[in-house]
Amino acid sequence: MPAAPGTAADHAHMARALALAEQGLYSTSPNPRVGCVLVRDGVVVGEGWHVRAGEPHAEVHALRAAGEAARGATAYVTLEPCSHHGRTPPCAEALVAAGVARVVAAMEDPNPLVAGRGLAILRQAGIEVCAGVLANEARELNIGFVSRMTRGRPWVRLKAASSLDGRTALANGQSQWITGVEARQDGHRWRARACAILSGSGTVLADDPLLNVRGVDTERQPRPVVVDSRLQTPPTARLLDGRPVLIATANPDPAKAAALAAQGAEVLLLPDAAGRVDLAALLLELGRRGINELHVEGGAGLNGALLAAGLVDELLLYLAPTLLGNPALGLFGLPELTSLEQQQRLRWHDLRQVGGDLRILARLA
Amino acid sequence: MPAAPGTAADHAHMARALALAEQGLYSTSPNPRVGCVLVRDGVVVGEGWHVRAGEPHAEVHALRAAGEAARGATAYVTLEPCSHHGRTPPCAEALVAAGVARVVAAMEDPNPLVAGRGLAILRQAGIEVCAGVLANEARELNIGFVSRMTRGRPWVRLKAASSLDGRTALANGQSQWITGVEARQDGHRWRARACAILSGSGTVLADDPLLNVRGVDTERQPRPVVVDSRLQTPPTARLLDGRPVLIATANPDPAKAAALAAQGAEVLLLPDAAGRVDLAALLLELGRRGINELHVEGGAGLNGALLAAGLVDELLLYLAPTLLGNPALGLFGLPELTSLEQQQRLRWHDLRQVGGDLRILARLA
Repeated sequence: MPAAPGTAADHAHMARALALAEQGLYSTSPNPRVGCVLVRDGVVVGEGWHVRAGEPHAEVHALRAAGEAARGATAYVTLEPCSHHGRTPPCAEALVAAGVARVVAAMEDPNPLVAGRGLAILRQAGIEVCAGVLANEARELNIGFVSRMTRGRPWVRLKAASSLDGRTALANGQSQWITGVEARQDGHRWRARACAILSGSGTVLADDPLLNVRGVDTERQPRPVVVDSRLQTPPTARLLDGRPVLIATANPDPAKAAALAAQGAEVLLLPDAAGRVDLAALLLELGRRGINELHVEGGAGLNGALLAAGLVDELLLYLAPTLLGNPALGLFGLPELTSLEQQQRLRWHDLRQVGGDLRILARLA
Repeated sequence: MPAAPGTAADHAHMARALALAEQGLYSTSPNPRVGCVLVRDGVVVGEGWHVRAGEPHAEVHALRAAGEAARGATAYVTLEPCSHHGRTPPCAEALVAAGVARVVAAMEDPNPLVAGRGLAILRQAGIEVCAGVLANEARELNIGFVSRMTRGRPWVRLKAASSLDGRTALANGQSQWITGVEARQDGHRWRARACAILSGSGTVLADDPLLNVRGVDTERQPRPVVVDSRLQTPPTARLLDGRPVLIATANPDPAKAAALAAQGAEVLLLPDAAGRVDLAALLLELGRRGINELHVEGGAGLNGALLAAGLVDELLLYLAPTLLGNPALGLFGLPELTSLEQQQRLRWHDLRQVGGDLRILARLA
């Protein structure tokens, strides 16, 4: 492996820029979280982060804060400065105009169609450019944006909670509560950073969930999405509270669709050959709609269907220190395996205790 | 809480005595693991640990090593010196005879009938006594001995291995291998420290296991015990290899029992009212036979029966980073719960990664 780029000071300033970027964790959707630090002669002269779509990018906030002090400074940005005229002028040009001497970027733009263009504008203006400082950390922070830009679909994080023996509910359906209050609060923080929350009609019918974020200081609610092959979601469902709920179905029933539309829902017909919702097509549609991180919180059926289709990127599993036994309900409705060679192996990503429960992040991607 | 007894030097020497005691982890059964350090003027003048039953206790080894230097020394012992004339003379008297000035003990003898007697002999001889230094560590090291002395039954450690979703085998029975080689090696180290390994006739019939310790440097093999209500263990089972296998049954079939006895097994008739093996009675019988730590490695049936009877003290669970899905076989054949109030809560005791797997130690006791 080549040596990591950048000096120790570069790493420290980029770590600060990443911490700033993380301020936008709950709010920048569908944009990436980006932070910027301007440093001249070792002194921070300006900081900024992107707050929400339609508002200035991180670089603009930092340049405004620095004013004339930006001239000759080094700009630390967690993502390659943009090169396109969108809702705001290109940040690469703004950095040139401000007289910045050096730009350190954590990573290039993940969109392969524009990657490197912002850095090229800087280089052409005679600015020294260094890319790849804390690149892994920057990529993790925008894992959903990277997924959407490179694969056209969201990063799919499947959240589940079970007993230590993998049971989500008693045979009679009772499941409140297996995990503790801290784990449930933690789960809401993961919801808050997602652009959308996906569930299934089975869960909607059984639990009538709100599918919203509660107990987290956030100005933005993720969009609820329901996989509902037979279009069974009742127009009286609690989640139809005015938010633009998306219901994906394989059932072209105009009356049902109209009743749901009257409650503010958008019904999307996405049947596969088997008469169920085409989950891969749904993810691509969510990608087109700017969904970066998709938080899945459904039952064993939806979980199993997504896993079996290879569409889950990450598992967020809370294990409670309890045993419910084999008659209780299991986590994943996967098809029966006949050989261990068919198993889905994961990679541990993070293991920690949250309250009295164990939280496991493991990745399939 | 009162302040922890002993000085920093006392803790350091006791830590050394515990490390010495641990040398006997695989060999002292049915005796406890005990270590002793003799210190005079801050210098270690003798060390010893109990190696195996019938041989000298830790104190005797340390006194022999110290010789005349024991006079005026402080003796650090991980367990109260014995006061009874058994296969060896009482260690308390040996310490008195050697002229030891001070004795620091990690814990009193867990046997309530003799606890404190050894320390009393020392005090009566004018020796300064301090008890309770690193008491928790000492108790953990002899958790099985403590269980047998205080409850009359072994410490029951149930070992299992499953996928992250709590599945031990595919529906067709395939289970080799879900966890990795490091986890399996680690499992054999836990077997090695146990006095006996308990399994069920279902596992014997399905897997024909050896129920022995492999790949661990140990001179002692734990005693195999099989719960076999209907006495179905075939006399040709591989575990009947000359070791004194104990088979607990509810079936008084003299011909079957004779055939098993001819292979060296001892058949124990322990029926409960339902015509199955009385597991609580079996544990008491194992306690009477000097079994300190009982390592359980069976299937969902035996696991569930022991858990349902409240007879499991500790769960040793290896979780592999893989998902096998709901059709695969579950961990614990417990009766169906109808309310979460009936659940068995555990306490996390130790969490770590072993090879590519996650190892969880959790306690019910």
